[in-house]
Order: sequence, then C-alpha cells, then structure tokens
Amino acid sequence: MNEAGRGADFLQLSPAAAPARGLTSWLADAIRAAIIDGRLGSGTSLPATRLLADDLGVSRGVVVEAYQRLADEGLVSARPGTGTKVSGLLPRIAARPTTGEAASGEPASGEAASGEAASGEAASGEAARPVPSLLPQPWRARAELDLSPGVPDLSGFPRGAWLRAERSVLDRASVAELGYGDPRGNQSLRRELAGWLTRTRGLRAAPDDIIIVSGVAQALALLAQWLNAHGRTRIAVEDPGSLGSREELAYWGLTPAPVPVDEHGLQTRHLAGSGLRAALLTPAHQFPTGVVLAPQRRRELLDWAVAADALIIEDDYDAEYRYDRAPVPALQTAAPGHVAYAGTTSKTLAPGMRLGWLVPPARLHADLVEAKHAADLGSPALPQLVLARLIATGELEQHIRTVRKRQRLRRDALLGALHEQLPEARVQGVPAGLHLLITFPDRAGTVDDVDLAERIHRAGVLVHPLSWHRQRPGPPGLVLGYAAHTPDQLREAARRIARALTG
Amino acid sequence: MNEAGRGADFLQLSPAAAPARGLTSWLADAIRAAIIDGRLGSGTSLPATRLLADDLGVSRGVVVEAYQRLADEGLVSARPGTGTKVSGLLPRIAARPTTGEAASGEPASGEAASGEAASGEAASGEAARPVPSLLPQPWRARAELDLSPGVPDLSGFPRGAWLRAERSVLDRASVAELGYGDPRGNQSLRRELAGWLTRTRGLRAAPDDIIIVSGVAQALALLAQWLNAHGRTRIAVEDPGSLGSREELAYWGLTPAPVPVDEHGLQTRHLAGSGLRAALLTPAHQFPTGVVLAPQRRRELLDWAVAADALIIEDDYDAEYRYDRAPVPALQTAAPGHVAYAGTTSKTLAPGMRLGWLVPPARLHADLVEAKHAADLGSPALPQLVLARLIATGELEQHIRTVRKRQRLRRDALLGALHEQLPEARVQGVPAGLHLLITFPDRAGTVDDVDLAERIHRAGVLVHPLSWHRQRPGPPGLVLGYAAHTPDQLREAARRIARALTG
Repeated sequence: MNEAGRGADFLQLSPAAAPARGLTSWLADAIRAAIIDGRLGSGTSLPATRLLADDLGVSRGVVVEAYQRLADEGLVSARPGTGTKVSGLLPRIAARPTTGEAASGEPASGEAASGEAASGEAASGEAARPVPSLLPQPWRARAELDLSPGVPDLSGFPRGAWLRAERSVLDRASVAELGYGDPRGNQSLRRELAGWLTRTRGLRAAPDDIIIVSGVAQALALLAQWLNAHGRTRIAVEDPGSLGSREELAYWGLTPAPVPVDEHGLQTRHLAGSGLRAALLTPAHQFPTGVVLAPQRRRELLDWAVAADALIIEDDYDAEYRYDRAPVPALQTAAPGHVAYAGTTSKTLAPGMRLGWLVPPARLHADLVEAKHAADLGSPALPQLVLARLIATGELEQHIRTVRKRQRLRRDALLGALHEQLPEARVQGVPAGLHLLITFPDRAGTVDDVDLAERIHRAGVLVHPLSWHRQRPGPPGLVLGYAAHTPDQLREAARRIARALTG
Repeated sequence: MNEAGRGADFLQLSPAAAPARGLTSWLADAIRAAIIDGRLGSGTSLPATRLLADDLGVSRGVVVEAYQRLADEGLVSARPGTGTKVSGLLPRIAARPTTGEAASGEPASGEAASGEAASGEAASGEAARPVPSLLPQPWRARAELDLSPGVPDLSGFPRGAWLRAERSVLDRASVAELGYGDPRGNQSLRRELAGWLTRTRGLRAAPDDIIIVSGVAQALALLAQWLNAHGRTRIAVEDPGSLGSREELAYWGLTPAPVPVDEHGLQTRHLAGSGLRAALLTPAHQFPTGVVLAPQRRRELLDWAVAADALIIEDDYDAEYRYDRAPVPALQTAAPGHVAYAGTTSKTLAPGMRLGWLVPPARLHADLVEAKHAADLGSPALPQLVLARLIATGELEQHIRTVRKRQRLRRDALLGALHEQLPEARVQGVPAGLHLLITFPDRAGTVDDVDLAERIHRAGVLVHPLSWHRQRPGPPGLVLGYAAHTPDQLREAARRIARALTG
C-alpha cells in the first residue's frame, strides 16, 4: 500500500509526514507533542501497539519502541492488562511552557529562555508542567551535572546582606511606603537605579523614566501589549534566540519574525525593507550564542530604527558578567527615543526575586505605566526597598564583583578543559555572561546536535543543543551554562562531554 | 450582646446555628464534620479553647468539653504545650477537596477600588497619573484626617514578626526556592494557604488549586483576559461598586454592566435574562456600602450562575475583619465550579505586599496559570516563603486577632460619635470591614454628596462621596474609612463632619 495513503485517526498521524528514516523518533515526537500541548490528557489510553502499527502501516516494533521511549521519559506508563496510558505528570500547564522572562534580553533569553521560562516544546516537549523547562522533567532529574544556561549560582545568593538590608528597611520604612504605591515603583529604588544604570551601563535615565517590573518577562509583556495596541504585530527576533521570549511575545499576540544571528550578532541587513517596526535583541551578550553585536551592526540597527520609526527592545539580561572584553554600553545610550531597555536581578541575585526594570522611550512611558497598573498595581514594596538599600550601601556592587570573579574562574576552568578535551570544537560567547557555545566547524553538515546532547545526557551531563533555540535550521552547537558548578565539576563535565562525543 | 451576632472565622461557626440546648454537641458535630470531609486535615491545630469560646460567646467549658469528646473518639489529640490537633487517623478519606474552583473577588473593591487601584478620573478627573487615586493630589495633601476607605492601619504592620520570619526563611530556603519557580506560586505557601482558607473561609481548595498572584488586582487581570478570550466581554458589576475594578476590567477589554446594590446586596433579579455570563461581587462586605449579600440573593446568584453557565468573581477583600455578625462562608464553598475566589494580604498586612491568591474553577485553572506565566513568570519567592512561615507559626492569625480588636474599638468610636453628632444620618456597613457608609434617608432628594464631601474637606477631613463609586445616579452617601486613625482622631473627624454638614 502506498504509504501516503496510510494513517491513523489517533492524532491524525500519517507516516508520510515522517522522514525516510527515524519512524520511531517521529512517532515518539508526535505523541510527546500531543501530551505536552494537552491533546492527550493525563490518564488517556494510547492505542494498542498492534492496532496503531496496522493503521500506520509500520512494523509493530516501531510503535513498541516509541512507547518505550515515552515511558523512559516518564510521559506514559504501561501496566499489564490496562495498556499504555498518559501519566499524570503535570497539571497541564504545559503547554505554554514558557515564555520566559522575556523581554529583552533577558526574559526570554536570560530569564525566560534559558532559565525556565523557556519552555520547550521545541526541544523535547514536555509541556504542561508547572515549571516549564526546555527539558522533560525526567531528563532534568537524571542529569548529574545540569549545565542548562540561564540559571545563576543560586548558592551564592547574599542571604546575610539581604537580611541586614531588610532589617534596616523594616526599621526605617515609612508607613506610606507599605501602602498602595506608585505603579512605576518605589521612588528610592528608582533613584538608586538611575545612578546605578548610568554608572554601570552608561544609560541616560532619570528616576522618573524608570518603571520597576517583575523581571524582564513583565517588561516584555508590557511592551508586547503596547506594540499590539499600536498595530505592530510582527517583531524581529534573533535566530537562534530565546524560545521563552518568543512564546511570551506570541501569548501577547505578536508574531516573532526570525532574523539570523552570526558571529557579529543580528544580521541587520535583513531589517531594512522588511516592513518590521519592532525588534527584540540581546546585544551585549547574545542568547544563546554569546556574541556581541558588532559596532557596524549597531549602527545599522539604529539607522533602521530611526528610518522605520521602530522600537528596539534591549534585553540586557546578564550584562553584569563581563570578563575580558571592554564594556559595551547599552544600545539605549545611543538612541533613547527608539530603545526600550530592560534589566533584571535574576542573574545577579536570583530569578526568584522577580525584580527588574524597564527604561522605555519617553513617548511610551505613560502607556506602559498604565499597563503595569492594570497588571498588578505595582511591584511589591519590601523587595524594592531592600534592593535600593543594597545599591546604596555598595553591597550589590561588592556582591557582583565577588560573583564575577568566581564566574571567571569557572569559565576559565570549563574553557581550559574544553580546549584540552575537545580541541576540534570552536568555543564562542566566552568574554561575558554565564554560558558559552561550542560549535563544530569541520563537522557542521554531519552532526545532529540533539543527538549529541542525548549522548551527553546519557553520560550524566545536561546541555542544550543549539537547535532547540533555533526557529530555522542552522549549524549545530551546544550551549553550556557554567554558573552553578565548581571548576572541578566543570572539568568533569568537559571530560564526559568529550567522551560522549568521541565515543 | 446578641448571640446571633457572634461567630468564629474558624469553620465559620456561629452559635446561632446551634439548637437551644446542646451547644457542646453542636460544636463537636461541626468540628467532626470538618475533619471527616477533609476541611480540617491531619495535624491541623484547633483554636485555643479560650479564643474559640470568646469568638463564639460561649463558656470555655463548652469548647473544652467538645474537644474532649472528639479526643475520646480519637479524632483529635491534645498534648501539653502544643494544643489540640487533628489526629492522623484517617488517611483522609475525605474529601478530595474538589479542587478548587474558584472565585473571584477582591481585586477591585478592596484593592483596586478603594485603595489605589482605583484611579479616579470619574472622581475628579485627572487621568493618566502615575499614582491614580480617587482624589486629586492637592485634596489629598491638604486633608488633615484622611478617611479614604480601603487603606488598612499601616502603622500596625508586624515588622518584627516579618523580620523574624524572613530570617528563618533565609536560613532554610533551598537553592531551588530562589530559582525560577512554579508559576502557580511556592508549594509551601500554597499548602499553608489551603489549610488557612479552609479554616477561616470554609474554602475547599487543595494546594494545587491555588494560584499565588500579585494581589486581587492581578487575579482580576488574569480572569478578565480569560473572559475576553472566551468572548464574554460584558460583566455584571455592583453599583455602587469599585471604580478601580471597573477601570481594570475596561483595560482588559471588558464592559462593566452596572447592577444595583441595595441593603441586601446585589439585586440578583437583574441577572436572569440579561445575557450576561460573568459577574464581579464583594459578597462578604460589599464595597462601598458594607452590606452582606443576603441568603436569598446568594441562592439566586448561584442559580443564575448554574443556569447561565456564568463565572462569578468573588472579591473577598476584607473578610478577615468581622465584628458582631456571624461569619459568612465564601460563595466559592457553595459552587466551586462557578466561582473564582480571590483574596489578598492588602488589608491584613499591607497593600504594598502585592500578595494574594486566586482559587479558580478547575476548568479555568490551566489557562490562568498560563496567563500568570506570561505576565511575570510567577510572584517573587521570598515574600511568599515569609507569608507561609507566618501562617505556619500562627503569627498571622495572632496579628489579625490583634488588629481586629483595634479596628473594632475604632469602629465603635466613630459609630458612637456619629450617632451623637449626626443623629439624623443612617449608618450602614457596620458589622465588618474597615469602612462604613452614612446615608441621609430624610434628605435624599436634597443633598449632593460631592458638595458635602467638599465642605467636609474644607474642614480638614477627607471622605468619599458615594456618588464617586456609582455608575448610575442614586441616593447620596458618604464613605468613611476608619482603619488608620485612633478613636480620638475619629471622634474629632465626626465632630468636623457634623459641623460641616449642619453649618
């Protein structure tokens, strides 16, 4: 029988849609996707293997093997007599895993994308989880060394300094500071931040220009609402880039338009003539490639923004971590009228803070404050006051210096081990951030990075295949976050990666 | 005092429901039923006998005897030093809380409306302000005694208890608890809240039914998005009612349809045949009139919700403050599939906390979690952990008892002074909440309440004219919040109000 004519009612599966080889992977992927997006609810029975194999015109072994893979991942379970059923994993949030924090750089990328905002249907889909993630929970659970990008070293959270600052805040806060506050955020925090952003990122922002938000994710949500309300429903995004950000933009009604990223950053030539009037970028340390937007590209980007009267969303998610390169000022400094700058404490303190800031072009300011007010009336008071105090006392800066030194040692350890163990790999995204990217220039056509990541995972190390972060096909790569591990752990991870790749 | 007015938050017990004799049996039966149906889980502490006896207005011996009976039955156990706790007897046959479906509720009135969500163009028009408010800033600034409703006594914020709890949290929090979290909120807080809401409001909600939100305002935002996405763009609201809520609903694309409120609450007869399929209410203590939704109206409301397959949003914004009336269980307990319940710490701790909870109907749950995730990835971790600790240690309950006593004294002072100074005025909304309403039954046709409020303001007292909270014309009134002033200040305010009205 002609394969194109075969198919099952179940999920409308047709093997004609499968690649020539890899029927098992195709079938497992299709069922996994349906579990994740909620089409197959918890407790649903999968068809008997024999029946489905008949429907699809494939061997029964293909179906058995696909079911087994899903069982290994914890997505389905088989019991004698009752057949194979979808497990009750997660209360089906699933599907949206994600969205990260988005906004600008960070939410999506940093926060959303790599942290957990990123959800990952693209990846292996497991959607519906309360804690969205690029990886199915079982994978995550089994990895001895989790090198997912986007999560800082949480063990370094300055608990003592935070508590001291909180005591001081509770001693001194006025009654009014505990009441319904300014939706833009606490005045003393905005004052401290204005100085901080000028000193560390060159920003031109007065306290009243700043809106305190619940992380870059909320900044992105507010900006997406504005763009949508103004009829700009398409937005350029980096490819590869943050899945979490893309999903958040989509939730708010925008269609992400992928623009390729190369070693100089976003290929800005694709913008002119595109008709687009909005773009989301991570210029200081592109997520996930780690490249810096080159000076020429910066100029082209800003020229486009002026010519097209476009809005650039600058996600400055991990700008605080810079090791051996000159600081790159924020884009916003060059064109404050066209750039909405978003930053966060997710990488310097902890993602659980949910505390960030947005510095929009002046003409958007009132609308965004209204949107913030309609979202939640404003961010919680006490954490804002504590952060203001940590900036005022210099403790935040001290903390970042300490962490930066530690991260540099970690990066050096991983880098050294990779050079030694995997000399053929090219490593980029090195001078900044909390993750780096390995590519394989000599084997680009022959390597499937998801396969690589799976082999590495079997060796107990969790890394992200670059293709998870892509919208369109491109050269393979592996993204390695090093923030949360000691140099010894990172050297061990490099050894296992090398063994898995060469073994 | 009349026994019919007494009652405890605990299980919403009211001795008025007891037979003439047999208080002990009645109490033992009520607690036994709650243990059996799961509202009181294993390990839950019963209230101290003295406190419960006080709440119920019965002799302590009645409570001691009831506890003893339950202990004899093996349902509870008492140990020196730890009080009486529910035993672990039954592997919780009980109830399966059913999931909470939930409710709706406070955003608007409590939080949004009266506090600051309420913005106030309607009032005196000043739109687009960074700090929306029902009053023009100059007015607010000049008032010596600000009796705006909706703001609790912020000077009573339990700074010491908060700091102790924060220290404990920072000592113990796992690294994972500081990372990107569950968009539904921290698991330990949801667990504590499930017990708390069952004990104090009768809610049937499992931890996984609850979504932690940034106050009722965010609950309302998430629910409005859901309604809009499902084509329900009109929603019944109380008139008079919360301006802040109406404005928030409008921001999210809904059209508020005013339904009159009388002394029995919302006039539910207007709902049938209206074509509406959503309603926002403050049933326990209507904002701003202070009336309780009468039993007959509750029935009609729920009948309508079932017949029209409607969603009721229950804004339970100040349910913790109840003085001399029997507790009214939340609407959600009667129809968890049609009620989205929303509560907040804005009135018990401080509005600046921006911390509340939403217990939606089960079928909305996944969509609302998705919306919460897309809004901000989840609420900040540390304040959630601190609140969980304050509930677990009993300090939140202790704080509320203390504040409730203080508020009762304040209410009594204001009430007494009004009776004395303004005998012709009718005062309502007295038995609960943090504000009351004065109306002028004999002069209804001749009084303009905005004029009255202006005259009172010239005497240094800020009150809200009822008409600010109306959508359609109606009898005049003045809304007086008493939470933030001492009895002496309130007596002085009453004197000035009387002088301004009669002068």
